[in-house]
Amino acid sequence: MAAGCCRLLSLLLLLCEICFSLPVERHENLREDKCGYQSCHATKASMLNVHLVPHTHDDVGWLKTVDQYFYGDRNDIQHAGVQYILDSVVEELQKNPDRRFIYVETAFFYRWWRRQSSDMQRTVKQLVNQGRLEFVNGGWCMSDEATTHYSAVVDQMTMGLRFLNQTFGPCGRPRVAWHIDPFGHAREHASMFAQMGYDGFFFGRVDYQDRSRRMRAKEQELLWRASDSISPPLADLFTGILPNGYNPPEGFCWDQSCDDPPIKDDPDLEDYNVNDVVERFLNIAKSQSLVYKSNHIIMTMGSDFQYENANLWYKNLDKLIRYVNARQSNGSRVNVLYSTPSCYLQELHRANLSWALKTDDFFPYADDAHDFWTGYFSSRPALKRYERLSNSNLQTCNQLEVLGGQASTSGPFGQGDSLTLRRAMAVAQHHDAVSGTEKQHVANDYARRLANGWQRCQVVVSNSLAALSGSTAERVYCNSLNISVCPITESSKKFSVNVFNPLARPVSWPVRLPVNGTTYVVADANGKAVDCEVIPISGTTRDVRRNRGFAVNELLFRVRAPPLGFSTYSVSLLQDGPPLASTGYHVPKSIWNKYLRVTFDPTTGLLSGLDNLETKQSIGLTQNFYWYNASDGNNSNSNQPSGAYIFRPNSSTPFVISKTAKTETIQTSVMQEVRQWFAPWASQVVRLHTDSRVLELEWTVGPIPIDDDLGKEVITRLDTDIKSSGIFFTDSNGREVLQRKKDFRPTWNLKQSEPIAGNYYPINSRAFIKDDKDQLTVVTDRSQGGGSIQNGSLEIMLHRRLLYDDVRGVAEPLNETSDVFPEGLVVRGRLLLSLDHPASAADTHRPLAEEAVLQPLLTFTEGHLHPNTRLEFSGLQAALPPAVHLLTLSQWDDKSVLLRLEHQFQSWESKANSQPVTADLQKLFSTLEVTGVSELNLSANQWKEEMKRFDWRPQAVEKQMKKSLEDPSMWEVTLRPMEIRTFLLRANLR
Amino acid sequence: MAAGCCRLLSLLLLLCEICFSLPVERHENLREDKCGYQSCHATKASMLNVHLVPHTHDDVGWLKTVDQYFYGDRNDIQHAGVQYILDSVVEELQKNPDRRFIYVETAFFYRWWRRQSSDMQRTVKQLVNQGRLEFVNGGWCMSDEATTHYSAVVDQMTMGLRFLNQTFGPCGRPRVAWHIDPFGHAREHASMFAQMGYDGFFFGRVDYQDRSRRMRAKEQELLWRASDSISPPLADLFTGILPNGYNPPEGFCWDQSCDDPPIKDDPDLEDYNVNDVVERFLNIAKSQSLVYKSNHIIMTMGSDFQYENANLWYKNLDKLIRYVNARQSNGSRVNVLYSTPSCYLQELHRANLSWALKTDDFFPYADDAHDFWTGYFSSRPALKRYERLSNSNLQTCNQLEVLGGQASTSGPFGQGDSLTLRRAMAVAQHHDAVSGTEKQHVANDYARRLANGWQRCQVVVSNSLAALSGSTAERVYCNSLNISVCPITESSKKFSVNVFNPLARPVSWPVRLPVNGTTYVVADANGKAVDCEVIPISGTTRDVRRNRGFAVNELLFRVRAPPLGFSTYSVSLLQDGPPLASTGYHVPKSIWNKYLRVTFDPTTGLLSGLDNLETKQSIGLTQNFYWYNASDGNNSNSNQPSGAYIFRPNSSTPFVISKTAKTETIQTSVMQEVRQWFAPWASQVVRLHTDSRVLELEWTVGPIPIDDDLGKEVITRLDTDIKSSGIFFTDSNGREVLQRKKDFRPTWNLKQSEPIAGNYYPINSRAFIKDDKDQLTVVTDRSQGGGSIQNGSLEIMLHRRLLYDDVRGVAEPLNETSDVFPEGLVVRGRLLLSLDHPASAADTHRPLAEEAVLQPLLTFTEGHLHPNTRLEFSGLQAALPPAVHLLTLSQWDDKSVLLRLEHQFQSWESKANSQPVTADLQKLFSTLEVTGVSELNLSANQWKEEMKRFDWRPQAVEKQMKKSLEDPSMWEVTLRPMEIRTFLLRANLR
Repeated sequence: MAAGCCRLLSLLLLLCEICFSLPVERHENLREDKCGYQSCHATKASMLNVHLVPHTHDDVGWLKTVDQYFYGDRNDIQHAGVQYILDSVVEELQKNPDRRFIYVETAFFYRWWRRQSSDMQRTVKQLVNQGRLEFVNGGWCMSDEATTHYSAVVDQMTMGLRFLNQTFGPCGRPRVAWHIDPFGHAREHASMFAQMGYDGFFFGRVDYQDRSRRMRAKEQELLWRASDSISPPLADLFTGILPNGYNPPEGFCWDQSCDDPPIKDDPDLEDYNVNDVVERFLNIAKSQSLVYKSNHIIMTMGSDFQYENANLWYKNLDKLIRYVNARQSNGSRVNVLYSTPSCYLQELHRANLSWALKTDDFFPYADDAHDFWTGYFSSRPALKRYERLSNSNLQTCNQLEVLGGQASTSGPFGQGDSLTLRRAMAVAQHHDAVSGTEKQHVANDYARRLANGWQRCQVVVSNSLAALSGSTAERVYCNSLNISVCPITESSKKFSVNVFNPLARPVSWPVRLPVNGTTYVVADANGKAVDCEVIPISGTTRDVRRNRGFAVNELLFRVRAPPLGFSTYSVSLLQDGPPLASTGYHVPKSIWNKYLRVTFDPTTGLLSGLDNLETKQSIGLTQNFYWYNASDGNNSNSNQPSGAYIFRPNSSTPFVISKTAKTETIQTSVMQEVRQWFAPWASQVVRLHTDSRVLELEWTVGPIPIDDDLGKEVITRLDTDIKSSGIFFTDSNGREVLQRKKDFRPTWNLKQSEPIAGNYYPINSRAFIKDDKDQLTVVTDRSQGGGSIQNGSLEIMLHRRLLYDDVRGVAEPLNETSDVFPEGLVVRGRLLLSLDHPASAADTHRPLAEEAVLQPLLTFTEGHLHPNTRLEFSGLQAALPPAVHLLTLSQWDDKSVLLRLEHQFQSWESKANSQPVTADLQKLFSTLEVTGVSELNLSANQWKEEMKRFDWRPQAVEKQMKKSLEDPSMWEVTLRPMEIRTFLLRANLR
Repeated sequence: MAAGCCRLLSLLLLLCEICFSLPVERHENLREDKCGYQSCHATKASMLNVHLVPHTHDDVGWLKTVDQYFYGDRNDIQHAGVQYILDSVVEELQKNPDRRFIYVETAFFYRWWRRQSSDMQRTVKQLVNQGRLEFVNGGWCMSDEATTHYSAVVDQMTMGLRFLNQTFGPCGRPRVAWHIDPFGHAREHASMFAQMGYDGFFFGRVDYQDRSRRMRAKEQELLWRASDSISPPLADLFTGILPNGYNPPEGFCWDQSCDDPPIKDDPDLEDYNVNDVVERFLNIAKSQSLVYKSNHIIMTMGSDFQYENANLWYKNLDKLIRYVNARQSNGSRVNVLYSTPSCYLQELHRANLSWALKTDDFFPYADDAHDFWTGYFSSRPALKRYERLSNSNLQTCNQLEVLGGQASTSGPFGQGDSLTLRRAMAVAQHHDAVSGTEKQHVANDYARRLANGWQRCQVVVSNSLAALSGSTAERVYCNSLNISVCPITESSKKFSVNVFNPLARPVSWPVRLPVNGTTYVVADANGKAVDCEVIPISGTTRDVRRNRGFAVNELLFRVRAPPLGFSTYSVSLLQDGPPLASTGYHVPKSIWNKYLRVTFDPTTGLLSGLDNLETKQSIGLTQNFYWYNASDGNNSNSNQPSGAYIFRPNSSTPFVISKTAKTETIQTSVMQEVRQWFAPWASQVVRLHTDSRVLELEWTVGPIPIDDDLGKEVITRLDTDIKSSGIFFTDSNGREVLQRKKDFRPTWNLKQSEPIAGNYYPINSRAFIKDDKDQLTVVTDRSQGGGSIQNGSLEIMLHRRLLYDDVRGVAEPLNETSDVFPEGLVVRGRLLLSLDHPASAADTHRPLAEEAVLQPLLTFTEGHLHPNTRLEFSGLQAALPPAVHLLTLSQWDDKSVLLRLEHQFQSWESKANSQPVTADLQKLFSTLEVTGVSELNLSANQWKEEMKRFDWRPQAVEKQMKKSLEDPSMWEVTLRPMEIRTFLLRANLR
C-alpha cells in the first residue's frame, strides 16, 4: 500500500494543494519479501490440494477476562495464555520458512506487541512481510453478530486494523474476514466486511440442516449478497463454511490440549504409526473433497487458545506434509501444504467457478434439533444495555474531543482520553461479551472496563464543554438516572443541565430528574421558562435503587438541543415539601396526545389498543408479560437445557405472570403514564410524552424468582389484529431490515423441531409486524431476541434467569447475582412503539432508532453559571437531511479527523428518504475548517480507490446494474441508500 | 577429562606398552567455554542466595510406556511428551545465557538426541560445554531403590553415563546424583553413587517424622556413610533433602500443567501483581532458610514432565529474578539466581561446615501416619522375578559375547546383540518399573521389552556357544521351565542340555525337566551316567501351565558346570509309559539329607522344625500362609487404602489361609519333596535336594480370590524359637545387610502408627533373624517386602491383589489380570532357607544368593551332538576365591572389555571370607589374552585416578582409618570387603 499511497499522493499533489498525511506509515519491505497472495505456496493443478491452516482462536474474554487470557492467569478455570501463544508461534515460524500462521484478534496481538523488544518486533515484521505470519479479520476482537450494533463493530474493526496498518503497513492488511466461532451470522456483518475490502469471509458455525443440504449441493462456499440496497458487488462477499467448525479433522489435533496420537516415525521405538496416520489423513481429505467444489480444500489446524506450545503442532504437521506428499511418488493424487485462508481463497478465485447466491442471513443457528442458539440474543440484558449506552457515550466523547480541540484531552479537568473507552467498547463487541455468554466474573470485567473508559471520557467531555461553553465550572455526571439517582438534582436548589446531542439533527428529549422539591422553575438557554412538572417517584424505582438515592419526586421537562451541540437549562427549586401523593389508582380508559391514543382494558389494566390520530390508524393491541419455563434438560427428546447460549422452553405456551395489572396513573402537562404492576418482580410504565409520536413502554423485570426451582425466560408480548401472515421483520445489527417467516428458512426446507426457539431472531434495534394497512414498529434500547409466533403477535425476550448450564463451555447457569443484587438482577428498559402506514414507517423508526442509539448526554453544574457561559452550541453549520446519519466523528491524529456519513434508509423503505442525498464536507462543521479530504474504505485502513477486491461470479446470471453516480465535486459527496462513506479530513478548529 | 586422559595415556606410554584406547572420545571445547562447577553463577556472600533449579522429572514409564512418554502419545492418560520438553528447553536456553536446566534420564535424552540434526547437536553441545544444560544423575533412568538389585543398577548407570561421556565428554559428566522421586532411599544406592564419583546426592521424599526432626535440627543436609565395610570417605556421600519434594514452592509453579498466577507486570493491564509475587517469594525464602544450615537454599522449579513449553517457566523465572533482586537496592538481603544442584552443592562445600553423619537408610518411607510406602516392595511379584531373571540372562549374554568373540553378534544364528536387553533392563530399573507401581499396560510393556531383549540375546548366546563348542546345532531355549513347559524335553527321545554357569566358581544345580517318559538315561560331559529320577508333575503345576505344555512327569538330576563356563548333559528316553502314580498322600514326620532335617507336624501337614545336621543346630520352625485384608480406605483414622505403593492392612492380625495343609510326598534319590495345598490358590513344595545345604520352599499363589470384595496381601510367615529381640536383618539392593528393629528408627524417636506396614522393609535378596546361637537366613528369588513382627518370626509378602487405587497417581487398583490369567495372576517363587551359626552364616548365604541371582542358563539341542562338539568349557583359568564375585564381564568396544570384580562379604560377617583377596587380571581368563588394564570408577565414566570428590566434614569428629592397601602389582588387584573394582581391559581371544 505504501507504494500505492505514494502514487495517490503524487496525483493529488498535482491536482491540488490539499493533500495531507497518509493514514498508514511507511514500511520498508525488503525487495525479496512477498506478502499477501504473492506469498502463497504453489499448489498442484492435477491434484487435490489440502490447505492446512495453523490457527488459534483466542476469545477476547469468555471463561476468563481478556487480561487473564493474555497472561495465562487463572489457568484453573481454563488453560490459556495468549502471551505464550504468540511467543511460541513466532519462535516456531522461524524454524521452517514453509510454515504459516494466521492471527486474528488484535486486542491480544497489541498487548503482546508492546512488550516485545525491538529485535523481536523486527523479526515479526519480517515474518509478516514474507506472508509467514498473516493477519486475518484483524479487528480488535471477533465480534458477535447477533447482538452487536454496526456502529460499534465498525469502530472495533477500525481500531484493530489501524493498529495492524500502522505497525506493518500493507502486509499487515487482512485479506479475509474470519468469524469461525460466532453463533449465527448477520447479513450486515457480511455487508460491512465487503465494504471494508475483504476478499472473502470464512466461518465455522452453521445450522445443521443448512449444512447438510449445502454439503449435498456443494454449496458450503457461496456468494453472499449482503445488502438489498447497495449496488452489487459492493456488498457482495464470498463466503466459505469451514469443514470442521474451526477444529482440525478428527484424530489430527496435535495441540497440548489434545490427546490425538502424535506421528511416531522412529522405527526403533514402539508404535511406529506413519502409515496409519497417512491413510487416515488421505481418507479424510477424500471425503471432504466430495462436499466442496474445487480441487482445493481447507483444514483448520487449531482451535481455542491452541499453539501455546506451537512446536507440538508444527513438528507433527511438518511430518504429516512430508509423509503424505511422499506418497505422490507412489501415485497418490493428494498434495498437502501449509496455507492460509487467503491463499486458499486465491485458489478458489483462480478456479473461476460460479457460486450459489445467498441474500438472507444465517440466523438462527441450531447445532441439533433441540439446540437453538437463540437464548444469547437476550442473555445479560443489563450488560447489553450498558454496552449500547457506552457506545453512545463513546460517540459523544469522540465528537467532543474533535469539537473541543486539543484542550479536550488536556484541559481544566485534567488528562482524559477516548482511547480507554474505545478499547473497552471494542473488547465488549467480542462474541462472548455483549452476547452475554461469558462467565459472571468476566461480564463484571467488561462492565468495569466500560465504566473505566467512561471515567476517562468524562474528563474529555468536561474539558471540551468547558472549551466550548467558556465555563470551567465542575460538571457532574449522573450515570444512574435510569433508576432516578442523581445526588446533585436530589439535593441542589439551583443547578443547570447541559444537554449534548450527538446527532446531526436537532433533538427534543424528555428529561426526568430525581428531586426532593415539589415545585421547580426550569429555563432554557434563552432564559425562557420551560413547561415542567413534579411527580412522585414510583414504588418500583424506589425498590430498585436500593438506598442509592433518596429522591421522593421526579422533575419532568422536555429539552431541545441543536445538531452536534448542546443547550443548557437552568433549574431552580421553588418549593420544598413532603412527597406528592400519587394521582390515582384507577386505570383510565385511554390516554392520548395529539399524535397517539392508547387505550386500556379497565378490567385487566392492560393495553387494549393504539391509534395514530394523525393517520387515523387504529389497531387492537394487548400487551402482557409471560415467562417460558426453561428446560432443565431432563427431557425425552433431548437433554439440552436452556442456558446462556441456548433457548429451549419446556413448553410452547408461556405462563402469564398476571392476567391483570395493578395500576396507578399520572397525568401531567408534559407526560402521562400508567404504571402497571404484574408481580413484585415485573412492572411497567406505559408512557406518552406530550410532544411525541412514540408510545414508551418502560419495563422493569427482576429479580426473577427461582425459589420454585424453575428457570424463567421472561417475555413481553404484543398481540395485535395486524394480519401479519406469519411474517415479521427484524433489523440486522441496527441497519438493514430482513423479513422473517414462521417455520421457514429461505434456503432450505426447514424441519422445525423447536416451535418457539426455532422462530427467534435477533432484534438489534427494531422489529415490526405489518399488513397492507398498518405497521407496528418496536424500537428497542438494546439487543434482544424475539419472534412472531402467532399472526399479529410480536414477542420480545426481556430477561432470563436459568438454573442449568447449557453445556457449551461456559459452565455456569445464567443466574445473574451480584453484591448489589444478591437475590438476582433487576433490569429496566424501554420499548418504543410507533404505528404507521407501512410505506412511511421508516420515516419514523429510522430517526427514532437513531435517537435511541445515540442519546443526548446530560451533565449537571451546581449553582449559577458564570454569565459569560455559552449556553448553546452547534458543531454543524446546519442540520443534515433526515437520510444522513453522522456515524463517526473522531480525532484520527493531530491534524486529521475521521468522518463517516451514512445514508440510513434502505432503498425501498421510504418514498421521501430512500433517495440519494448529497452533503458538502466543507460546509458541514461550524467550528472546523476542513482543508483536505480523502476517502477510505469502511474500516479506514485503505484508500477507497485502492480497494480492489476479487470479483466472484454468482450462479444465477444477472444483469449488473451499477449505477455510476458520481459525486458532484470533491467536497460534495453523495450517499445512496444504506451507503456509508468514510473520509479522512484535514481539519483545524476555526 | 580428555586432557586428563591424554596425560594418563602419556604416562602409561612411558611406563609400558600396554595402553589402549580411552573410554571417552575427544571433545573440542571452545577455550572460553566453562562447564561444571566453573560455570556457576556468582553468589553474594552477605545475602541469602536462592538457587532456582529448573528441572523436569521424566518417568521412564509409569502411567504411559517410556515410548509413549517420549512421543507424547496417549495424552488422554497423562499429558506428557518428552520430545517436546527437550525441544523446548534447548530453545529457551538459547534465549538467555543466564538460564540453566538440568536433565536426568538418559533413556529419554538418548531417544531425542538421535533424531536431532547435526546443527541441533552442535547447539546442544555448546549449551553443555557452557554449563547451561547440565546432566545430573545421568543413568538410563532414575532407579528404584527398594526393589532393584545393585548389579542392574550399576549397569543402567554405566549405560546412561557412557552415552553422556561419549557424546559430551567431561562436560557431560554429572556431578551430583539426583533421586528426587524414589519412595525411600537405600544405603547401597548411596554407596554406589559415592563410588561412581558423585560429589553429592539430592532426593525429595523422606519420612514425614524424619523430616520434621531434621528441619528442627537443620539436618536436612547430612553426610551419609553408606558402607560399614568400605573405608571412609570412599562410600561417604553428601546428601541433601530437598525442601518441597521436587516441586516448586507453593504458588510458584509456572508450567503449563500448573494454575499459579503468572507474573503480570504490565501496569496497563488488570491485576498487576509484581509486588505481591515478590513479597510471597521473599517470605518463602526466609522460612526455608530457617531450616537449612548455610546462606544458600535451593528451590526445585519444575516437576513431573514439566517444561514441555519451557517458555512459561523461563519467562516468569526471568521476571522473578529481575524483580526480586531489584529489591536489593532497597535493602533486601535476598539474592536469587539460576542454578543447578551442583552449583548449589559447590556453595555448600565452600561454606566449610560440618554435617550430621548418618549410617542407616531411609526405609520405610511414610508421608503420613497411615501412609507407609511399603506395599511396592512386593507389588507385581511376577514382574519383579522376570526382571531378576532377565538380569541373569543379560550377564550371561554379556559374558558369552566376550567369550565367543566377534562371532557372538554375527554368527551362524544370525545377528544378535546384548544392547536390546541391556536397554530393556535399564528401563526396568526405573522407580515405577520393577517397583510395580506402574499401570498394567506399562508393566506389560516392560515385560515385552525384556522378552524382546532376551530374544536378541539368545542369538548371541547361540552364536557364542557354537563358537565355544564347535557345534552349530540349533539351540532351544525353554523360558517356561518354572511351570514345567519345554516342548523339546516333552517330546524328544534324545536331547542334550547345555548348562552355562555365569559365576566365577563351579556350581551344582538341580535340573527339573518336563517329560512324558518314565525312564531316562542322563550322561555328563564325560559320558558318565548321572543319577536321575522321574516323578509325576504336581497338580498345581498342571493347573498353572494352562495347556501350554503336556508333560505328565518331571525328570530330575543334578548338573555341575565349571566357572564361567558350560557343561553338557545328554538325555535319552529309555521307557515311555503312562503317568507315574503319586507316591503318597501322607506327610512324613521328617525328610532329611546329610546336611538338613526338616520336620513336619503330621496333624497339620505344616513344617515344625529345622535341624542342621552338620552343626547340630536345631530350631522350631512353623511356616504357614496368611493374608492381610487390605484397607479399602473407609476408616476412621485415615482414608488411605492399600495400593500399588501403600501397604495398609485393615488389621494387624492376618487371616490364615488354612490351618492345615493337604499334602503329598515324593521321595527320590536326588530329591525329596512334600507338596502342600492350603487352598486352590495357595500351595507350596517343601523340597530338599540330596546334595544341598538349603531348604527350598517353592510357593505358588494365585489367582487371589476377590469375590468377597476384599483386597488381599498374601504373606508366608516363618515362626521360630530364635530369640531375635525384635531385630531382623535385610540386605540393601542385594549387597550389605542392615539391622532392623521393630518400632524403631535409628535417627529419630518413632511414633509408630502402622504396626505392620510401619515395620516392613525391602528384602532384596535375603533376610535373617538370629540370636546368639542360631541364624535362620532366607534367600529370595526376587525383591519382596517383609518384617519381623513377633520375636523369632519372619514374614515375607508374596503376592498382593487389591481393589482400590492408593491415590498416588497410578489410578488403578493393583489387580493384575491378563489374557492368560483373566481371573488373576498366579505367581510361583522360591525361598531358600539355611540354618547356621551367626558367625559363619554369610559363608552360606553369600554364595547362595549369588547363585540365586546369576543362575545357570540351560539350552537344549535335539538328538545326538556331533562327536567333535566340545562338551565342557570354562572361561577362567581357575575358580576365583569365594569372596570374589565376577560382577561384570562385557564387551566395551572392539578392543576392550569391561570387568568388575567384587568382594562380596561385609567386613564383619565372616572370619574366613571377610579378608582382602587378590586376583591377577592377566591370569584370570583361559581364552582371553589381557594386554592392558586401566581402572575406572564404578560407573566406568571416569579414570579411577582422576576421580576427585568433594571432601565433607562429619559433625562427630572421628579418626579416619584409611587403610592404604596397595595392589601388589599392576595386574594383581586387591579387593577389600564390599569393594567393587572396575577395569577396562584390552583383551583379545587367545
